[in-house]
Amino acid sequence: MPARAGKRPGRRPGETQTRQAILSAARTRFAEQGYEGATVRAIARDADVDPALVLHFFGSKRVLFTAATSWPFETGEALEKIVAGPRSQLGQRLARFFLSIWDDPQRREPIMGMLRAGTTDPHAAELLRDTLMNLLLGPVASRLDESDAELRVSLCSAHLIGFGIARYILHFEPLASLDGERAVELIGPALQRYLAGRL
Amino acid sequence: MPARAGKRPGRRPGETQTRQAILSAARTRFAEQGYEGATVRAIARDADVDPALVLHFFGSKRVLFTAATSWPFETGEALEKIVAGPRSQLGQRLARFFLSIWDDPQRREPIMGMLRAGTTDPHAAELLRDTLMNLLLGPVASRLDESDAELRVSLCSAHLIGFGIARYILHFEPLASLDGERAVELIGPALQRYLAGRL
Repeated sequence: MPARAGKRPGRRPGETQTRQAILSAARTRFAEQGYEGATVRAIARDADVDPALVLHFFGSKRVLFTAATSWPFETGEALEKIVAGPRSQLGQRLARFFLSIWDDPQRREPIMGMLRAGTTDPHAAELLRDTLMNLLLGPVASRLDESDAELRVSLCSAHLIGFGIARYILHFEPLASLDGERAVELIGPALQRYLAGRL
Repeated sequence: MPARAGKRPGRRPGETQTRQAILSAARTRFAEQGYEGATVRAIARDADVDPALVLHFFGSKRVLFTAATSWPFETGEALEKIVAGPRSQLGQRLARFFLSIWDDPQRREPIMGMLRAGTTDPHAAELLRDTLMNLLLGPVASRLDESDAELRVSLCSAHLIGFGIARYILHFEPLASLDGERAVELIGPALQRYLAGRL
């Protein structure tokens, strides 16, 4: 039987709001406490629902984590922003793209949540790796036309992850209070070499 | 009253072994699960002691964490290895020094534990920052004779942290299975620019 237009089958009114409340609470908890630290019980309490309801909707903490930590940008659009323009500025555009997301607390939160969770949970690490590589850096690599594109994008990922953690989670100074465009100037050349330089 | 020579006051026989067992269990748990994930209860179970004894010895989880995650090298010696030699190879020596520690699982563990814990716990983040900056990169910076030495070492820290997480925790390929000396070749120039290049 085809699904009725304009209405998802099997969802009662109010269910969508409840799911959204749970996802929002989960996003905050995962971002603040990482995968291990954020309990289903605490997420349920924040969302003002019974823990059983969280599991009824999402099945497990892992599935909830995957649903809550979605990438805060549309990857096709992101890719265009990064690859369009002179090849000599590729690293700078990649740096600027990440800085533009990270300097916006709303969009930073899911990525930092993924990073926090990825360092303590193998499932979250896999998710982070797949998301970063398949959705964003992989397509950038495929435009590079280099035989060692995987190595190049994994070096960029490593540098970007470290910069994100040092600036936004560990608050290393003066990195943490650096102007965004200055940060682009500083890390852009390293990313440029990793993407398109001699290795 | 002066302490008796050869014996620490207030420690019963067997106490040292118990402390060591607790520290060893804590090190492993913190490394594997991060600060939040590693509970005093689980650490006590691994060390085969009562959780109350852990708190009796260390007072709190924070103190236990600080005691368990000590730096796995002697910093004066490390500093000499890094700064001795031509300035043009400084980044390469810094990379080689970290790789030599990280490629040894025994010595890697406490640092990875600090990184994992630092991403979820502000106290651990502070400890990681202070240790990295004050004990190692700060002294390197002071030999640089650059007015922006703090910025330079924080950029190096960021890159090294990201490389460590990507290679040893997230297992990004091909970074994770890269030969150590090849890794030094790859990241050395970025560290060199951060330490001594034009920014």
